[in-house]
Amino acid sequence: MTYGFLGLGIMGTAMASNLVRAGFDVVVWNRTETACSPLCELGARNAPTAADVVDAADITFVMLSDDAALRELWYAEGGVLAGVSAGRGVVNMSTIGDDTSTELSAAVVQLGGRYLEAPVTGTKKPAEDGLLVILGAGDRHLYDAALPAFEVMGKRSVYLGEVGNGARMKLVINMIMGNVMLALAEGMALAERSDLDPGLLLDLVAEGAVANPMFSIKGPMLIDRSYPPSFPLKHMKKDLKLALQLAEKQGQVLPQTAEANETFKRAELAGRGDEDFSAVFEALQ
Amino acid sequence: MTYGFLGLGIMGTAMASNLVRAGFDVVVWNRTETACSPLCELGARNAPTAADVVDAADITFVMLSDDAALRELWYAEGGVLAGVSAGRGVVNMSTIGDDTSTELSAAVVQLGGRYLEAPVTGTKKPAEDGLLVILGAGDRHLYDAALPAFEVMGKRSVYLGEVGNGARMKLVINMIMGNVMLALAEGMALAERSDLDPGLLLDLVAEGAVANPMFSIKGPMLIDRSYPPSFPLKHMKKDLKLALQLAEKQGQVLPQTAEANETFKRAELAGRGDEDFSAVFEALQ
Amino acid sequence: MTYGFLGLGIMGTAMASNLVRAGFDVVVWNRTETACSPLCELGARNAPTAADVVDAADITFVMLSDDAALRELWYAEGGVLAGVSAGRGVVNMSTIGDDTSTELSAAVVQLGGRYLEAPVTGTKKPAEDGLLVILGAGDRHLYDAALPAFEVMGKRSVYLGEVGNGARMKLVINMIMGNVMLALAEGMALAERSDLDPGLLLDLVAEGAVANPMFSIKGPMLIDRSYPPSFPLKHMKKDLKLALQLAEKQGQVLPQTAEANETFKRAELAGRGDEDFSAVFEALQ
Amino acid sequence: MTYGFLGLGIMGTAMASNLVRAGFDVVVWNRTETACSPLCELGARNAPTAADVVDAADITFVMLSDDAALRELWYAEGGVLAGVSAGRGVVNMSTIGDDTSTELSAAVVQLGGRYLEAPVTGTKKPAEDGLLVILGAGDRHLYDAALPAFEVMGKRSVYLGEVGNGARMKLVINMIMGNVMLALAEGMALAERSDLDPGLLLDLVAEGAVANPMFSIKGPMLIDRSYPPSFPLKHMKKDLKLALQLAEKQGQVLPQTAEANETFKRAELAGRGDEDFSAVFEALQ
Repeated sequence: MTYGFLGLGIMGTAMASNLVRAGFDVVVWNRTETACSPLCELGARNAPTAADVVDAADITFVMLSDDAALRELWYAEGGVLAGVSAGRGVVNMSTIGDDTSTELSAAVVQLGGRYLEAPVTGTKKPAEDGLLVILGAGDRHLYDAALPAFEVMGKRSVYLGEVGNGARMKLVINMIMGNVMLALAEGMALAERSDLDPGLLLDLVAEGAVANPMFSIKGPMLIDRSYPPSFPLKHMKKDLKLALQLAEKQGQVLPQTAEANETFKRAELAGRGDEDFSAVFEALQ
Repeated sequence: MTYGFLGLGIMGTAMASNLVRAGFDVVVWNRTETACSPLCELGARNAPTAADVVDAADITFVMLSDDAALRELWYAEGGVLAGVSAGRGVVNMSTIGDDTSTELSAAVVQLGGRYLEAPVTGTKKPAEDGLLVILGAGDRHLYDAALPAFEVMGKRSVYLGEVGNGARMKLVINMIMGNVMLALAEGMALAERSDLDPGLLLDLVAEGAVANPMFSIKGPMLIDRSYPPSFPLKHMKKDLKLALQLAEKQGQVLPQTAEANETFKRAELAGRGDEDFSAVFEALQ
Repeated sequence: MTYGFLGLGIMGTAMASNLVRAGFDVVVWNRTETACSPLCELGARNAPTAADVVDAADITFVMLSDDAALRELWYAEGGVLAGVSAGRGVVNMSTIGDDTSTELSAAVVQLGGRYLEAPVTGTKKPAEDGLLVILGAGDRHLYDAALPAFEVMGKRSVYLGEVGNGARMKLVINMIMGNVMLALAEGMALAERSDLDPGLLLDLVAEGAVANPMFSIKGPMLIDRSYPPSFPLKHMKKDLKLALQLAEKQGQVLPQTAEANETFKRAELAGRGDEDFSAVFEALQ
Repeated sequence: MTYGFLGLGIMGTAMASNLVRAGFDVVVWNRTETACSPLCELGARNAPTAADVVDAADITFVMLSDDAALRELWYAEGGVLAGVSAGRGVVNMSTIGDDTSTELSAAVVQLGGRYLEAPVTGTKKPAEDGLLVILGAGDRHLYDAALPAFEVMGKRSVYLGEVGNGARMKLVINMIMGNVMLALAEGMALAERSDLDPGLLLDLVAEGAVANPMFSIKGPMLIDRSYPPSFPLKHMKKDLKLALQLAEKQGQVLPQTAEANETFKRAELAGRGDEDFSAVFEALQ
């Protein structure tokens, strides 16, 4: 089996490296060629175009940042579709809208290829440690074929049915995370305003029923009012918007999420979009 | 040392039992006398009035359900104040408003007694297992004197300064919990409406950054739409209201909490007040 | 000059009738032919297809219900575009999204035609009485040419610049209206719940600084809890959603509108979509 | 008949002046004596204490700014209660909480006096022009006796039943006004952000179903971003808080008002409390 990997940003590099280290035969391509070097040193081969990767590999993984980048990669000269032929598998691990994913899937299938949507939860550290959670949806056959690779990149993978379900599940998970972050932010703000020790509040919450890793990581950032990005606020803002759009389509009231969307928007408009999403705390000051 | 215990409901019985089992000398009183029996069998002594308990004990713990019950117990004939004299300590572990606590404190101090506010986080199970978290505030000397008993009843205790700080810290903690519960409820509702498996959503969240014990316990209740109360919704509703009042006093915007208060209110008005607070899920249907 | 009119629903019939009664030469077409009869009796001529109308008229007015209906009419065989040629003017008075309007405009212009977007504020009664307010945007020349007809159909018309500005202004106006309606609904609900006479509240508000025609018309509907539609709730819901989308694009926080969107959504999900938008009152019960 | 008037601020001076000009026999008192001069020049008599006024007059009107000022005036040496005896009437026209009003009423009645709560809607200009709306509640006999004076001070007066109903009706009216103000503010903000002319938006709204005097007065203040106070934002903020407290007591969801309370709070915390309540617009920037 030969595996392709397109998109060697922070996430993609970590994931592809794990594949190479696990002994898989990996062909890579990135828009900027230099990104390949570390991977090539590990043993990956470089191909001149994305199409060459897709053509050379049984299964090609794709990890880009947003819908627009995906569309460009798909339809460009030397892009993904130019390499698809009967039996080729494309596994899109990027986080994108369910509609875009459906469109990209149709284009691959029309050329005789197979498509699997497989967004992940987890950021840089879990990607490096092979501890991602992978949300597969689409071609079941391709999912099964990709499992050995998923087992290297993640600690868990699930199959969710038709294309779009992975994107939607990811949205719901991120929306919960955004709301929970804001819950902590409001608690910390009220504590500080009431002359209660915010560090002690974090300690006490960590002993209780809602203790969770995110509070331990982000809490001190709120105390320091410094937000080095691991998940940029503008991305959380976008996911909240998409979750609300999904709720419009499905007919679900989401009063908390609608409010959170406005508060995150306030933080983004105040210039916090590239900071960590915990910077929503600043919108409460 | 002799310890008193007033209020033998679910929480009080569990806490007092732990004291007796640990070998402490405990005198108890409850409004309805039958509540004493199991404790007396363990070795506690019963006193005819609350005043007798306070008079007989070096430190008396109080665990009642709300401000009104506390006030009645304080000022009644044979009540707490009737037993207070120089050096007697009263440790109020009930969850009440900061203003009420300040008033009860002043009344005790005026008679030469000592007062400590010490609300706890944790419900029935942690109370039985001696795993409460105790938020002490008020008389520092009394706090130190009560520590051996706190170590039996809880896994952690902290001293927060002046009377009121314990009540306020408790409010902030519960307010975070209420908001986080609603975050899960909205995520589960959107998942179900989008034909995503809510059980799988729970599994996936449990693998991620906001994994927390409450989601594991309450999540299945949302799937079953059955909410046996461990913390009744009407109490969470009251705490959200009190947190908003605190925010008014201190000058803090809390848009998420203001919204949550309305959604919990909606659930309470729909008759869910005595169910578990996870029944806020029903207000999203 | 010959004028065309496409779309003879409640609004279109009223508007076209005013043109005919004012002595204009009018050619009409409607998807269901019977809608023409009353107009034909007044003196309008009927054409077999929309394309025939556009071809026969100097300026053709279009009044349909939504984006989908417009798109169908535009691109269908015998549709609008099939009739457009150099110099033909199309004035789209329907309320649609700014993006759709821009797309429809481009298609007309490419064929040498002129396009004006001209949504109106006002419902059935003002349409019949020629008292609409017309929000023109797009081809300035066409706006000037259409003015005599606008003066028959409306009490005021304005020119707002590039295509999309009419649609956007309409959205802002409707969004204010939706929020103001909900303000009344909450006041009426609180009054009733507090045993204050809601009819008297209406009287008192009518004497004060926010007295407005809508309160006089909708207020009694809330008291009767009966909502015969003059502007269906589902349309207001859609406009709130579109206003929030515009706010996302432009970067504007709209916390009140975000909340109103959820409350109107709640009413729509409860089956009130076809009732008047004042039925949002039911979502507060 | 002799009438008393206590409290000669902006509102009280305007109201008392109208009584004097209408030929009523008026005795006045103000905390700072200088406030009497203009009234005395018109023909009013000055008394050394509030108690002297109440004792000398058949009916005494009171117009102070808040609950605290009222309580002080009531219970002080030489205060209202010191002057009350059998048959004396006190008409409290201040805007205060329903609970405070009930307490002040009981104190008057216990001394054999009569009490009427009579808050007004309208600010300085309507007060000067005798165009207030008066919301009477409490002693019906006193209401009837005060009617000739009400007819001089206001354009309309109503009798609402038991003490507290006037305060509550006033709250509901102001809460509607606050929400409607925010509706305009959001519309104006979105228009400006979308490069639509905000002055034209005001014109168009003024032609439509929600045209109202407040929009005409406040709209230009938003365009100028200058908010000379006619009703200070901090007072509107307080009324929204009180309306939400009433809703808690009565069991009514008020999602829009809860949100508005947070947005007005945001404006107040940003230092806009003494500006006009239309300055809530700044919280959207």
